[in-house]
Amino acid sequence: MTDLLIRNLRPLGASATDMLIRDGRIAELASGINASGVPVEEAGGAIAIPGLVEAHTHLDKTVMGMEWYENAVGTDLRAMIDNERRARRQLGLDPARQSMRHALALVGNGTTHIRSHVDVDIVNGLSVLEGVLDTREALRGIVEIEIVAFPQSGLMIRPGTLELLDQAMVAGADLVGGLDPCGIDRDPKGHLDAIFGLADKHGRGIDIHLHEPGEMGAFSLELILERTAVLGMKGQVAISHAFCLGMPDWTRVEGLLSELAEQDVAILTTGAPSREVPAVKRVLGVGLRMGAGCDGVLDTWNPWNRPDMLDRARIVAQKNNMRADADLALVLAVCSTGGAAVMGVAGHGLEPGCNADLALIPGRTLAEAVATGGPVLMTVKGGRVTGRDGKPLREVS
Amino acid sequence: MTDLLIRNLRPLGASATDMLIRDGRIAELASGINASGVPVEEAGGAIAIPGLVEAHTHLDKTVMGMEWYENAVGTDLRAMIDNERRARRQLGLDPARQSMRHALALVGNGTTHIRSHVDVDIVNGLSVLEGVLDTREALRGIVEIEIVAFPQSGLMIRPGTLELLDQAMVAGADLVGGLDPCGIDRDPKGHLDAIFGLADKHGRGIDIHLHEPGEMGAFSLELILERTAVLGMKGQVAISHAFCLGMPDWTRVEGLLSELAEQDVAILTTGAPSREVPAVKRVLGVGLRMGAGCDGVLDTWNPWNRPDMLDRARIVAQKNNMRADADLALVLAVCSTGGAAVMGVAGHGLEPGCNADLALIPGRTLAEAVATGGPVLMTVKGGRVTGRDGKPLREVS
Repeated sequence: MTDLLIRNLRPLGASATDMLIRDGRIAELASGINASGVPVEEAGGAIAIPGLVEAHTHLDKTVMGMEWYENAVGTDLRAMIDNERRARRQLGLDPARQSMRHALALVGNGTTHIRSHVDVDIVNGLSVLEGVLDTREALRGIVEIEIVAFPQSGLMIRPGTLELLDQAMVAGADLVGGLDPCGIDRDPKGHLDAIFGLADKHGRGIDIHLHEPGEMGAFSLELILERTAVLGMKGQVAISHAFCLGMPDWTRVEGLLSELAEQDVAILTTGAPSREVPAVKRVLGVGLRMGAGCDGVLDTWNPWNRPDMLDRARIVAQKNNMRADADLALVLAVCSTGGAAVMGVAGHGLEPGCNADLALIPGRTLAEAVATGGPVLMTVKGGRVTGRDGKPLREVS
Repeated sequence: MTDLLIRNLRPLGASATDMLIRDGRIAELASGINASGVPVEEAGGAIAIPGLVEAHTHLDKTVMGMEWYENAVGTDLRAMIDNERRARRQLGLDPARQSMRHALALVGNGTTHIRSHVDVDIVNGLSVLEGVLDTREALRGIVEIEIVAFPQSGLMIRPGTLELLDQAMVAGADLVGGLDPCGIDRDPKGHLDAIFGLADKHGRGIDIHLHEPGEMGAFSLELILERTAVLGMKGQVAISHAFCLGMPDWTRVEGLLSELAEQDVAILTTGAPSREVPAVKRVLGVGLRMGAGCDGVLDTWNPWNRPDMLDRARIVAQKNNMRADADLALVLAVCSTGGAAVMGVAGHGLEPGCNADLALIPGRTLAEAVATGGPVLMTVKGGRVTGRDGKPLREVS
């Protein structure tokens, strides 16, 4: 079903109109459209927004639908990494099943695109990636999943990982991942040379986790910028978290942002409440692409995150002390078109010609819809209804 | 109905048992209790916790159930204050009706006790207080409401306010409030002498909003401590927010905490995601009483907060980077028994002899229940069922 007529929706909260979808794209927006033979959905005056984009998550980590995971690990990053690698096996965490549960929950909550990091390490090899690749294939037409081959356990500190990342790119990963070149991998030059080399070899982009705060993170960020420039990878690199951009030194951050803008490096935020984070308005203000994500959901790391980009909009906005209606609309844009821009999705919008990827949300104004937080009334992907009332239509298989 | 038998509940997640309530107090916890003539509720293995305590909110501010309030104010504290004072009248914000909506929503979400600040200012006089006093009276037996007479618009900068606060204490307010003696009221000595004088005159406690960060907040805090000691008000003063205790200078904060402990000053947190906040474990670690609150809910200040202490537990925990199961239980305790200790509620627990004030929440373990975030299955106040499935039983009148 790629033709669909949706009656009585309000694009971004504007006046009610009908939307005709042909061949998975938005063909027309007008009142009282007639299109015989085309299935009809009644939106009841709901607000339409471009499909939500989960631009930073880990589909391979969740324990959703399994026994409650009792977390006694604490919050040291390296301890959490080691714990998870062991727990994967002990818990029998099936990456195909779990990633499908997670992805479908996102679909129910209005998501049409996902960028997921997927662990690649010398204990689990490519088995985790293979499971998520299965889910990506199974959910084709329901949600688009972009995969980052992610050296979660470290790269230089665990020889053999680089070769596995290389194989992951051949096996179907879209981007090369990286992780705290100083803080975790203890060899910033080695780490960044390795992942940039791999990205260059495969002609793919990079999305690197950078939790490193303050000057350490700024140092790693500079090394990333140097390699981006030298390899001509402008517009192909994203930095997830980028906590260092939240440091208090205004002039230092200004300089970094200016260099990031020069290389068109994208920023992905989770609005981590307990950390210094990049300010949304400041990042957007220098023209950078910015998306958001829920990060891992109900996993061995964290019990708090939910597979719900409206919930994430609230968290990012609260962290950024955003309260005004205009700011609520802005943070929602980060969670939809912003993430799409980072992922390089063309035609993500509500204008004729755009992909018919959208979500219908309840509320009189866009701000009210964001503050209320759903549930999303309907998710549409390529003209196909994929979710209703916060639930995906496709069952987990 | 102050006698009740609840079958098959699990106190704090322990094994299932029955709870017999007599005359509004917990009489017995045992399996297979027989109590003929006593009404019976089946808990179905739900976890029982002491009633949730909303220890920092503003019942008089919410626009719940009214038209969506379009916020174009921004985030400057004084602008928000001035905007709200005007908006009260423009919106026709009825303090009795709105405080009842807010309080009952809290009841549905497991709350048995509320401490609310209520605005007293020279524009609105005591009219706002009178509305909330009406709600307190109307909800007697359903939820206990403690009222802080709160000079939201400033005290020294708005002559006549002190006299109104004095009248508020006579009219039924329980505590004297205060607000940023430097940042808002521009006269720390004048402000603190005034509110401590009033508290001393009426023999009541103080709960002061202290948003002031860093050294400014620490200075105000020292002035509060001096007056607490001199007036012999040990154990009768609470500081809400206390953002200055989140400043990075570890030794400075250590000194302040030690002095706060000496005067048994309580700390109330909202876990404000965009601010530096007092660390829960650190505050508890020096033996201070600590409670939490949702702050204003859906008002002219902020669209994000919800009248839901389980939601607040999540926000406080995320801000504190708490992830482990034991920490989830700790933050829940802050949101129930912690707040009760700040409010001076005796017998707030699940042991025989305690008040039968409790909430039944879904989950296999306490941590899962907190992470899931409800809805609360049942709220019980003095042995009376006041809420079911996240909804209050009493209607707004």
